[in-house]
Formats: sequence, C-alpha cells, structure tokens
Amino acid sequence: MKRRDFVKKIGVGGLVAGAVFTAGCSKQDEAVSKNTAVKKENVHKWKMVTTWPKNFPVLGTSANNLAEVITKMSGGRIQVKVYGSKELVPAFEVFDAVSRGTAEMGHGSAYYWKGKNEAIQFFSTVPFGLTAQEMNGWLYHGGGLKIWEEVYAQYNLVPAPAGNTGVQMGGWFNKEINSLDDLKGLKMRIPGLGGEVFKRAGGTPVNLPGGELYTALQTGALDATEWVGPYNDLAFGFHKVAKYYYYPGWHEPGTTLEAIINKDAFELLSDDLKEIVRTACKMVNQDMLSEYTARNNAALVTLVNEHKVQLRVFPDDVLRKLRNISDEVVAELAVKDATAKRIYSSFKIYREQVNAWHEISEKAFMRARALK
Amino acid sequence: MKRRDFVKKIGVGGLVAGAVFTAGCSKQDEAVSKNTAVKKENVHKWKMVTTWPKNFPVLGTSANNLAEVITKMSGGRIQVKVYGSKELVPAFEVFDAVSRGTAEMGHGSAYYWKGKNEAIQFFSTVPFGLTAQEMNGWLYHGGGLKIWEEVYAQYNLVPAPAGNTGVQMGGWFNKEINSLDDLKGLKMRIPGLGGEVFKRAGGTPVNLPGGELYTALQTGALDATEWVGPYNDLAFGFHKVAKYYYYPGWHEPGTTLEAIINKDAFELLSDDLKEIVRTACKMVNQDMLSEYTARNNAALVTLVNEHKVQLRVFPDDVLRKLRNISDEVVAELAVKDATAKRIYSSFKIYREQVNAWHEISEKAFMRARALK
Repeated sequence: MKRRDFVKKIGVGGLVAGAVFTAGCSKQDEAVSKNTAVKKENVHKWKMVTTWPKNFPVLGTSANNLAEVITKMSGGRIQVKVYGSKELVPAFEVFDAVSRGTAEMGHGSAYYWKGKNEAIQFFSTVPFGLTAQEMNGWLYHGGGLKIWEEVYAQYNLVPAPAGNTGVQMGGWFNKEINSLDDLKGLKMRIPGLGGEVFKRAGGTPVNLPGGELYTALQTGALDATEWVGPYNDLAFGFHKVAKYYYYPGWHEPGTTLEAIINKDAFELLSDDLKEIVRTACKMVNQDMLSEYTARNNAALVTLVNEHKVQLRVFPDDVLRKLRNISDEVVAELAVKDATAKRIYSSFKIYREQVNAWHEISEKAFMRARALK
Repeated sequence: MKRRDFVKKIGVGGLVAGAVFTAGCSKQDEAVSKNTAVKKENVHKWKMVTTWPKNFPVLGTSANNLAEVITKMSGGRIQVKVYGSKELVPAFEVFDAVSRGTAEMGHGSAYYWKGKNEAIQFFSTVPFGLTAQEMNGWLYHGGGLKIWEEVYAQYNLVPAPAGNTGVQMGGWFNKEINSLDDLKGLKMRIPGLGGEVFKRAGGTPVNLPGGELYTALQTGALDATEWVGPYNDLAFGFHKVAKYYYYPGWHEPGTTLEAIINKDAFELLSDDLKEIVRTACKMVNQDMLSEYTARNNAALVTLVNEHKVQLRVFPDDVLRKLRNISDEVVAELAVKDATAKRIYSSFKIYREQVNAWHEISEKAFMRARALK
C-alpha cells in the first residue's frame, strides 16, 4: 500500500510522460556490499532498460526486483542497474538496444515490437486468448517458450517470461459502450492484437508508452485508454482527467511481460549464473501476477467509492462481436509467414486443450463458490 | 508425455504403495561435476525427504527439479539428494524428520501435518477457498507467508510455497452422486478440511499417502478417492480398479505444496545461498502449476475416450450444501486458538477482496470467451 500512498502524495499532475517514480529503490548496492569477496574482474555489470517509468508500481518495481534477485543470488557477480524509459533509450527502443548490446538486458512486452514480426504478439497476449495461468502452461510446458527462444535468437536475444498482469481491464471510455457502434470513431490507446480488433470495430487504435497516457488523455489526444488494471490505473490517475466509464477486459486476458537478454552477454556467463538469470526471471514472472492479484481489488474499491468511477460491463452482444473479429484477426495473422504459422499451430492446439480443462476446473470452481 | 508413456508401460499392477517411479532422474550429479572448483569443505550436502513416491509425475519430479535448480544455481555449493516416501521416512513423518534435522529439507503439503495445529491447513487449501493464483497472491503479497513462517519457526522450520496443483478433481466414486445422501457411508480418501466437510456430510474420510491409494481401492478399503487431477490420476491408474464416476472439484481449489527447510541448516547458508533456496522454491511453485495446466486435459481425454471413465458434475444443490458445511468447518477452526484466529483473519479479508476482483476479471473473462 505504501507505493500507492506515495503515488497519491505526488499528485496526478506530477505523473506526466517519463515521470520518475522514486519509491521502492533498488537494494542491489546493499546486496553487493555484503559480498566484498567478489573480485572486480569477475563482475558482469549489466544495464537493464525498461519500457516503464522508473520505479512504476509493479511493472517497474518488478524489474527492480528481478535485478536485485540476480545480484543477490550471484553474490554480486552480476550487477544489474535498471533504467526507466527514456533514461537510456525510449520505451519502444528497448528491443533494439538490447539486441545490439547497448544494454545487456531489457524488460517490456513482445507486442511493443510487433514491427519486427507481428507474430511475436502471441508471446504477449491474444484477445479472448489465454489467462495468466494458461499462458504459463503454454510457455513452460506446452512448447511456447522454445519457439519464442528460436524466434528471438534471430535478433541476438534470449527471451524469458518475466511478469504477468492477469486479466487486464478493458479500459476507460468517455462514454458508455452499449453497442459496437459506440466504439466507432474513438481514438483509444490499445496496443497489440487488441488494437487491430478495435480498428476493425471502427475505432482508431494508438500505441503509446504508459508514461504518456495521462497527458494524452488530458490534451484530448485520446478518447479512451486501457492500461493495466485498477492498481496501476489508479497510480496514473486517469480518473482525474474526466468522468470515465471503466470496463472489464477482453483484449489482454493474461499479458506476459518479458525479460530480454543480449545473447552475447548471456553466453559469457558461467552455467551457474545462466541458471540464476533464468530462474530469477521465472520467479518474477510469478511474483508480478501475485502482486497484481493481491492489490487490484483495494484499488478498484478506491476508484469506485472515493473517485466515483462508473464501473460498467460490455453487453454480451458487444463481447461476442469483438470475439468474432478477434478470431478473424488471429486467423489472418496465423498465415502471414512461416514463423506465424509455427507459433499459431502450437498456440491453437494448446488453447483448445487448456480451455476444455479449465471449463471443468478453474471456471467451474469459480462458478460453484459463487452459487446463490 | 514421456513420463506417462513410461507409467503406462510399467502397468498399473506395479503401482503399489511406495512404488518407485524411475523416469526423470535427477541431473544434479552432472551439474555438480561441472563445478569442480567448489571446495568439498564448503559443500552443504542436504537430504530432501518427500511425501511422494520417488519420481512421481509432477509432484515428485518437481521436488527433483527444485533440488537440481538449487544445486545448479549454487554451482554445487548446495547438493540436494531427494528421497521418495518410505526411502528414509514414511510420507507423513516428513515434517518431524526435517524439524529435528534428520533431513535438511522436505517436500509435501501442510494439511498432512494437521495434527501439529489444524490451522496450518489454511496453507494447503480450503474447500471453496482460493484458486492457485489467489493463494499465491495471499502468500506472497497478502501477508500469508509471513504468518506461515512465524508459525513454522516454532517447529524449527522455514516454509516456502513450492508447487500448486490448480483446481483438483473432486474424485472417483463407485456410484453417482445425485444428492448429499449419496455421500453417506462412503469411505473416501480425502485429506485436510475437505475431509472434515465430507465427514459432516455423512461420509468417512481417510487420509492416506498417494502411494497407498491404488491398493486401498483394489482391496475395497476405500469406496472413493480423490488424488490430484487427470494427469496424476491416470498415472496411478484408478480407472482400472472398477467402473468409476469422475467429478470436478470443490474441496481443493488450489492446493499449495510446501518446501520445508530445517532452520539450523538454513541459517548456516550464506546470504546468496539463502536467496538461491528461496528463489528456487518460488520458481518451482509456479512451474508445477504450469505443468499441471499443460498436461491435465490430454490425460482427461485419455481417461474419458480410451478408458471410458464417466465424467459427471455434482448437482448445484450438492455443491451449495457442501459449501455451507465448508463455511461452518472453516468458521469453527478459525476460533480454535490464537494461531488459527490470526491466520483466518488474514485469509478472510484477503479472500473477500480477491473474490470480488476475480468476479470481474478472471471469471468474467472465462465466461466472455465461452459465450455462445
């Protein structure tokens, strides 16, 4: 709760593009000083560039956590310094920066670099696709990560899942959405495949880094935006810009954040350090989801009760139509090239299986516990 | 898939109590040999005792994985040797063995030692309680693990979540369950709080280690059993004992497996090795859930299509009644002593919040993607 209190104290006016969150600073210096036995010549000094404002709650602090745990587990043999977006490179240049070795490591999400190959968006999230738990099953035990590694190797990168938001909120709209027609003409920040679906529904999708959203709403450059969920959306203070309707999500059901590591830098590590980096990424992949899961509801209550945000749900008919468009978008992407075909083939088989299983397990259970 | 194929080849007759699964052997020796620079006097040689048959799919192999990752990340400075149930101590004596230092580490689940304090069952799972994702939120970011650590410190143990099964199946029954009356008189293996609920519904709960279930069904000592889910249940071959009805679950919605570490052994570790042990546990906590998520459906399809297992669902009225009894059982446990009060208070506040959040996120999404 401390972080949110902090954010509140800054006041939303301070949360402009590239804003620096200073709560939750890295403790890596402390960890390093405890391991004075480490010889300087054996230390790997790494820079981690990120797509988040420095120390942004959960997204940025999870990147800090990843850096700290690598430093601690390695006894200071790897020291990772984290940079917020724009500190070294702009958010959407993180991929290239790590690819060419300007930084050894990066933290972001695959759909931010869809310009490289649209198919890599499958490694972030797919509208009406997989939940966080399902994504992790696919990536770690369904063949997903293996393909991802092969695709990113072409860019001199080692990828690792390193965070998940869970089901994201559908976003903030300056009017109620009662039919698909209500989306027409809206200018909305919505990245990835969700953005393409929104476009075909008649809207104008825009992709902006999180740090630029508040200003874009304030200046009227956007009519609507999605970001993550209540905890992060409250931190950015979107509710202060105008009267908004806030909707549950469909477009990002379990967005995977990624760590990317420059392949040359990774290959320089000894086997134990490689295992440390991989395991730290797996750890933070779970930890971020756990933090969102624990914090979102209190933030939602604050938004609704204190700030009088209007919580709405999309009518079933709107959801059905968005899902049909999503199916089209995904099917078209799936045949674009050999990489897309390969990823989609793995994803599709897995999705059918896990959906069937979760119908009688996770979903059936959540239904049972709420039976009136 | 290899492991299941292996299990099939053994044939179910071989899967008696204490059966040794030999697939997926530990690779720790290999990891150690690569780090010949580690001085022998600096090596922590640990034994990990477990409640599972040696190398049992997912449960046992995750314990192996935990041991391997600790060994690899530490460059062989910690070497963990895994023992199946009965190899060093029987399954339900793991807690005491690690507490007194017979082994440095253990792998099981808190409800197996409810005799110590019934309230520790909250750290496994609660009927109609939290899903895996929700449990992780409570433990890591909702205060749950902090309390757990304090409670286990009294037994000279450091606990860590180290695996989750996701929603477990409700079990195998030798007749259809159409009303609560159909549970009356049934002798069923069902551990933890679910067992107490089952008892109040008129059944006779029995707690047996997994390795003894097949024989108990075969000899007629049990009328029904639950174990984990399709992947594990298929491995044990319950479908071969008799014609069974197989039901989705309510009693173990996200069972947390635990690693326990002898506190004296833990305190001997340097800071980097402590961080390595903690992080490895977090990693395997996620990894086990991912493996179950990826594998359960194929096993379910095999059970239903090949082995003609009859998949049924409990009528809503049965679920409602079981939930009411569960609420009673949990409420009574919650006031038993100061420890129970403290755990329950944390659990209850968290559960209300996370349930509210997941109604509009995880659950609403799973509903939306399945809309006809």
